[in-house]
Amino acid sequence: MRQIKKILVANRGEIALRIMRTAREMNISTVAIFSEADRKSPHVRFADEAVCIGPAPSSESYLNAEKIINVCKALHVDAIHPGYGFLSENAEFASLVKKEGMIFIGPSPESIEIMGNKLAAKQAAARYNIPMVPGTDTAIGDRQAAKQKALEIGYPILIKASAGGGGKGMRIVENESGFDEQMDRAASEALASFGDSSVFIEKYITSPKHVEIQILGDQYGNIVHLFERECSVQRRHQKVIEEAPSVSITPETRAEMGICAINVAKSCGYYGAGTVEFIVDEQSRFYFLEMNTRLQVEHPVTELITGIDLVKQMILIAEGKQLTFTQDHITLKGHAIEARVYAEDVFNNFLPDVGTLHTYVKPDGNGIRVDDGFEQEMEIPIYYDPMIAKLIAYGENREEAIRKMTRAIDEYQISGVQTTLPFCRFVMTHPAFVNGSYDTNFVSAFFKPEMLKTALNTETSELAALLSAVILTGSESKKEPVETIHSDSGSRWKSRLYPRSLK
Amino acid sequence: MRQIKKILVANRGEIALRIMRTAREMNISTVAIFSEADRKSPHVRFADEAVCIGPAPSSESYLNAEKIINVCKALHVDAIHPGYGFLSENAEFASLVKKEGMIFIGPSPESIEIMGNKLAAKQAAARYNIPMVPGTDTAIGDRQAAKQKALEIGYPILIKASAGGGGKGMRIVENESGFDEQMDRAASEALASFGDSSVFIEKYITSPKHVEIQILGDQYGNIVHLFERECSVQRRHQKVIEEAPSVSITPETRAEMGICAINVAKSCGYYGAGTVEFIVDEQSRFYFLEMNTRLQVEHPVTELITGIDLVKQMILIAEGKQLTFTQDHITLKGHAIEARVYAEDVFNNFLPDVGTLHTYVKPDGNGIRVDDGFEQEMEIPIYYDPMIAKLIAYGENREEAIRKMTRAIDEYQISGVQTTLPFCRFVMTHPAFVNGSYDTNFVSAFFKPEMLKTALNTETSELAALLSAVILTGSESKKEPVETIHSDSGSRWKSRLYPRSLK
Repeated sequence: MRQIKKILVANRGEIALRIMRTAREMNISTVAIFSEADRKSPHVRFADEAVCIGPAPSSESYLNAEKIINVCKALHVDAIHPGYGFLSENAEFASLVKKEGMIFIGPSPESIEIMGNKLAAKQAAARYNIPMVPGTDTAIGDRQAAKQKALEIGYPILIKASAGGGGKGMRIVENESGFDEQMDRAASEALASFGDSSVFIEKYITSPKHVEIQILGDQYGNIVHLFERECSVQRRHQKVIEEAPSVSITPETRAEMGICAINVAKSCGYYGAGTVEFIVDEQSRFYFLEMNTRLQVEHPVTELITGIDLVKQMILIAEGKQLTFTQDHITLKGHAIEARVYAEDVFNNFLPDVGTLHTYVKPDGNGIRVDDGFEQEMEIPIYYDPMIAKLIAYGENREEAIRKMTRAIDEYQISGVQTTLPFCRFVMTHPAFVNGSYDTNFVSAFFKPEMLKTALNTETSELAALLSAVILTGSESKKEPVETIHSDSGSRWKSRLYPRSLK
Repeated sequence: MRQIKKILVANRGEIALRIMRTAREMNISTVAIFSEADRKSPHVRFADEAVCIGPAPSSESYLNAEKIINVCKALHVDAIHPGYGFLSENAEFASLVKKEGMIFIGPSPESIEIMGNKLAAKQAAARYNIPMVPGTDTAIGDRQAAKQKALEIGYPILIKASAGGGGKGMRIVENESGFDEQMDRAASEALASFGDSSVFIEKYITSPKHVEIQILGDQYGNIVHLFERECSVQRRHQKVIEEAPSVSITPETRAEMGICAINVAKSCGYYGAGTVEFIVDEQSRFYFLEMNTRLQVEHPVTELITGIDLVKQMILIAEGKQLTFTQDHITLKGHAIEARVYAEDVFNNFLPDVGTLHTYVKPDGNGIRVDDGFEQEMEIPIYYDPMIAKLIAYGENREEAIRKMTRAIDEYQISGVQTTLPFCRFVMTHPAFVNGSYDTNFVSAFFKPEMLKTALNTETSELAALLSAVILTGSESKKEPVETIHSDSGSRWKSRLYPRSLK
């Protein structure tokens, strides 16, 4: 047991700010690191102390473990919170922190190591009889045996890099004739991306839902789950919209998945906050996918439905404190949805669209939370993930959360860069999302950028008519009021109708 | 029963925006009115339609009932939400709205009429045996009889204007010798302020707490209460900090006050949202003070601890819907605090300090809600109440709510005007507030502006030392980083220590 008095957050942007907010609420001093590109970042000003860690490229700054350790030593830091990305799932870094006598706010290096390797993770989980997608459980050596296995599983199958992530080195094989070619491609892509050509195969699930369970464990073997997050709305294999609870999970499945997630955590002696990802098929069967040994981007939706501050729990656990609650104490109340606001051009395949935030006015009010790391007139650097903000809406039920999210999206004012907001609004009003029948194919099945032009047909018809007029004149990105002259009892006055813009 | 499809909000600033947010979430169209001073106001842009109602002075715009009604008719408005202030407690306006075939989102004109007159309100409440501060229950005619009554009650006594509010026409009389003089003053002040010289007397409570109960009633006689708000931190007889629940109320008293509040509402056939104000003395006895027949500024703290959207309920009730919950369904969870951010100079007796918001960056994150009506570079007009925002913090308990509020105050960046934020921060760290022993004398008993200079002593001593250095140089309103040069293994680097400023 060691009280943490000073934390260095080895990250940037919204997550660095989010972690420091909780640290300050716990009376813990905060140290920010920043690259030369992030000098004006809110996380830098928020922190009690801040150190420029190097040039903009991550490898020279946020990934510079040695420099970060040196800063910690010089500033007498007790603990490091790695956030997500960067060094958060780097077992070597976690070891180094420990060796230097500091606390790594996260799991043990051993847990990171096991769960960082897909095959090692599967082997660990297998000891607890966790359901897994049928496939090979070791890297493929003998190609003929692999081909035989593929026949047993039944096509379509998926080839995946052992060391992979983010869809890299991943190939779908529709039938046996394509096997060899896709296998070669997957292996060489894996080698190029991860320096490791080993791949494995598994059954390809046609309409998968991505559902993950949040877990929390202390250093004494107490592990609880905080229900699920449904993250099936993705573009380029990356999540854009997440919600909790999942609309397609029954209370029984929720409980079952929770137990499985706890067992996955047990299988690697896990402590801290972690996320066990599952894939759910058309028949609502679920299969273990992987475990993320860190705080997840989408953790706020879980915080809102449980009332538990995950960062606070991570810090308490890292201090060596026992969980103060058991599974029975954790209740699920209401519904939360997160929309990731990326600086991306939805009209151009969601490619990053960095630039300066000339206008930046956030929504607010009852049930709205915005976790962001930018302010008006700041530039979104090209060096990092182009996420501007996470817009989170909480309501007493899913319908209310959707309505709040839609209202908040309409209220968000961003100019200077294209964002994913129009796409997020499209999702909120799409029948497949509203009725909960969507899966990870949502974007390819339902979305075409040109649909955004007519997304406002869901508004009142009068408004829609006016809007289409506005759109035809090409000013859809500005909210030009439509003026009308009225006259009553001798006086004349003007009303302005503000069409809800697509932003 | 009549569905509301379009609402005109007869108000400005944060409350206009707050009401419209809920309306939009309910798929109801919104109409804003604005004075010439509020042309750039967020509530104007947020609305679907907006009309300039007249010049800046309230009497020529937000109080121009006839013009507002004409706008409603021309734009086919179904209902008017008056917000607070302006026409919200004007029975004549409520009547007029009704007469024109529209819905007034609030109680009946009769309820407003009764509760708008302190004596009529007391007479109505007396029929339900509501505890009241000992005093005369009619306006004072015979001065000798009044003097006799004062002796019975026991000095100190309070003289109040029958039509009063906001402390106007209010006089404390310490003993009999001062009676005549104070009575003359109170009557002439009442005449000047309200056009009505009638006054009454009551027992003066030396250490009063101001605790109010939120009620909700439908048009079928179903009335529930949503617990209390503690509003004792006031300056110039106006609330600055409110919290829910009250730290000085037992569950038994809470239940008792709740029943009394419901009875007060029944006494005037109340429907809609309303607030019954009580004064609580040193012995935790409570007395009915008055009923506010409208949405209260501080309603968000109630929304956060109950999960009930008060504006949504007001709209549903106005449509003629029955409450969908009973008293047993309403639960109290967590703790919420609201700090009102006024453009006021705390160093100069809280006098308004209007001007331009050169910097305006709001706090955000887990448990923080900001209801405001301004954006960066906007001007705070001199014509209206100088409230910039309501900063609301929610935590699982009072301690957490205080920590979140303190963190959020530190995060708020406002330049261009002085604000009440430093005072609010002072309150959050003051022992009398932290331990809950405060009453309405908080400001006069504990606060001197010069204390803000040392308020940061609660920080770590190292930081405090640095800060006092910064303060001595007169730059306490800026957060100047303190730079230190470090050297390790041959390299030299710089850290910046960011003292937490008073802003």
